[in-house]
Amino acid sequence: MKLASRRAGRDGALLVVSRDLATAVAAMDIAPTMQAALDDWDAVAPALSGLYSRLNAGAAQGAFQLDQSTLDAPLPRAWQWLDGSAFPQHAALMAKAFGRPPIESENPLMYQGMSHRFLGPHDAVAFPGEEDGIDFEGEFAVITGDVQMGSGRKAAGASIRLVAMVNDWSLRRLTAVEVKTGFGWVLAKPACSAAPVVVTPEELGSAWQDCRVRAAMEVWRGDAVFGRVPGAEMQYGFDELVVHAARTRDLCAGTIIGSGTVSSSEYAQVGSCCISERQAIEMIAHGKASTPYLRFGERIRMAAYASGDAIPLFGSMDSLVTRAGAAPER
Amino acid sequence: MKLASRRAGRDGALLVVSRDLATAVAAMDIAPTMQAALDDWDAVAPALSGLYSRLNAGAAQGAFQLDQSTLDAPLPRAWQWLDGSAFPQHAALMAKAFGRPPIESENPLMYQGMSHRFLGPHDAVAFPGEEDGIDFEGEFAVITGDVQMGSGRKAAGASIRLVAMVNDWSLRRLTAVEVKTGFGWVLAKPACSAAPVVVTPEELGSAWQDCRVRAAMEVWRGDAVFGRVPGAEMQYGFDELVVHAARTRDLCAGTIIGSGTVSSSEYAQVGSCCISERQAIEMIAHGKASTPYLRFGERIRMAAYASGDAIPLFGSMDSLVTRAGAAPER
Repeated sequence: MKLASRRAGRDGALLVVSRDLATAVAAMDIAPTMQAALDDWDAVAPALSGLYSRLNAGAAQGAFQLDQSTLDAPLPRAWQWLDGSAFPQHAALMAKAFGRPPIESENPLMYQGMSHRFLGPHDAVAFPGEEDGIDFEGEFAVITGDVQMGSGRKAAGASIRLVAMVNDWSLRRLTAVEVKTGFGWVLAKPACSAAPVVVTPEELGSAWQDCRVRAAMEVWRGDAVFGRVPGAEMQYGFDELVVHAARTRDLCAGTIIGSGTVSSSEYAQVGSCCISERQAIEMIAHGKASTPYLRFGERIRMAAYASGDAIPLFGSMDSLVTRAGAAPER
Repeated sequence: MKLASRRAGRDGALLVVSRDLATAVAAMDIAPTMQAALDDWDAVAPALSGLYSRLNAGAAQGAFQLDQSTLDAPLPRAWQWLDGSAFPQHAALMAKAFGRPPIESENPLMYQGMSHRFLGPHDAVAFPGEEDGIDFEGEFAVITGDVQMGSGRKAAGASIRLVAMVNDWSLRRLTAVEVKTGFGWVLAKPACSAAPVVVTPEELGSAWQDCRVRAAMEVWRGDAVFGRVPGAEMQYGFDELVVHAARTRDLCAGTIIGSGTVSSSEYAQVGSCCISERQAIEMIAHGKASTPYLRFGERIRMAAYASGDAIPLFGSMDSLVTRAGAAPER
């Protein structure tokens, strides 16, 4: 099934969305919010699934035409956001461009990011200044149920309730400063934007294989395609990322785990999902980067498509980059 | 005033605690949980303050004798935990012992830590294995209201609603591995334990100066004092830590910001608030560390005292270290 959150207070209101994303219906009688549904998943999932079937059959009372631009993030605030860096091609390009040795790690790379606010798919995104090097990162993600510390791969895979897509905004000039401390990123990683629709793994069908999303992440900068990058080259499946995250802690229901920037070894053909990777490719090829970071007023759109599909798996994101403190725009 | 949370569901139930920590009274009629009080602080603080006055006067209906061991963490789950490293003596000792240059940073050092579970002050604390190098870190912390991105020092200081104390459990063998990636700590920083009582800054009186806690952090390992370390040498005040945290993001009400391990240049007299720092002192003095990390079955107690006070500012913590998966013990 497919779920989303209508704007309502700090946590939104739960909606069930039709397979074709054309209609939706309030699910508040089943669970008031996405987090409430995740907290009590086994009890509420059958009722949500039944409502999804009725909605797809055109038989759900109260169904309405869905306008994705009215939606909030599926989890407007989340208790935990752990972001991996599971695409080796991205890491290899970054290391090569900057003449650094690849990061040594036997484990998946992962950091704990800000989770108390995920921006809606069509929200304007405010940053304090262009000089921080504003960049986007197109990523896939999963949302888990409760996971016990020390869980193995099978339990980890079974804990994946929903699959999602995020734009992990990054401030590259601050990334470089903070990475040197070893403490990870605080300033460099402000709130992410989220695609509007989250989908159960079984609903993804053949677009979900080996706990990876087999779909192309399409990124537009203004009117130009920036990348149309397949998600297949993920080094670790999401089950393995969950195992890693739960090695020394229980994970709570509603934990979001990200893939890191989607990247492909065919980057010359398919492009990139962040500016920084394209700059790295330019530096390797020409000795210097020519693609600039984002300026205020630019617009980034993202959507992911399974092979042959015309409907984006997770709906569409359309984010206007703005200056913090300026009048909010939608 | 002084507040705490009785065990109840995932978020506890709000209590007002008397000045001497001897009695408490349910505050659920004013706000059901600590987070709810923080979300709506300006509206509810006067009523909580009135209840606190009646409780101290022995005139609060429903007041009961407080048993601290029955309490949960003040915020059993929090939307955000940002932990600083604001005691320069601690950083200097660690750098010297390991022959590393000090971490270069014009800004406070800070990482984003796990916030979806803070353990209660007397909860057993479970880890997967002793070989990870189990250590404690005694820290002071503040809990903020909503803070706007780009706030200055005055607004940041005014956003501090409550002052708190935490034990930031650390797995040192994993700290060393994760710090090299630059991604910060996930495995090395499982759930923290929290002292039972949180206190408004004005209630701390002279123990709150320049947005720093002027009190001694007392740490016991089993029956021996491990440290009795004054909090005065904090390089940055909590207002400055809030400014840093809010440089590129809004902070939500209920954000917890930590000081990092309390440490003093008089360490030879006052001891340390974590094993790792003591090991560093031993390495500098004798070429090798002799104090071992924690074993299962050990007990760590912490409490902070203002000069001349017999009542711990934030109540007392008493944590038994256990193996994950073993039968829980309280």
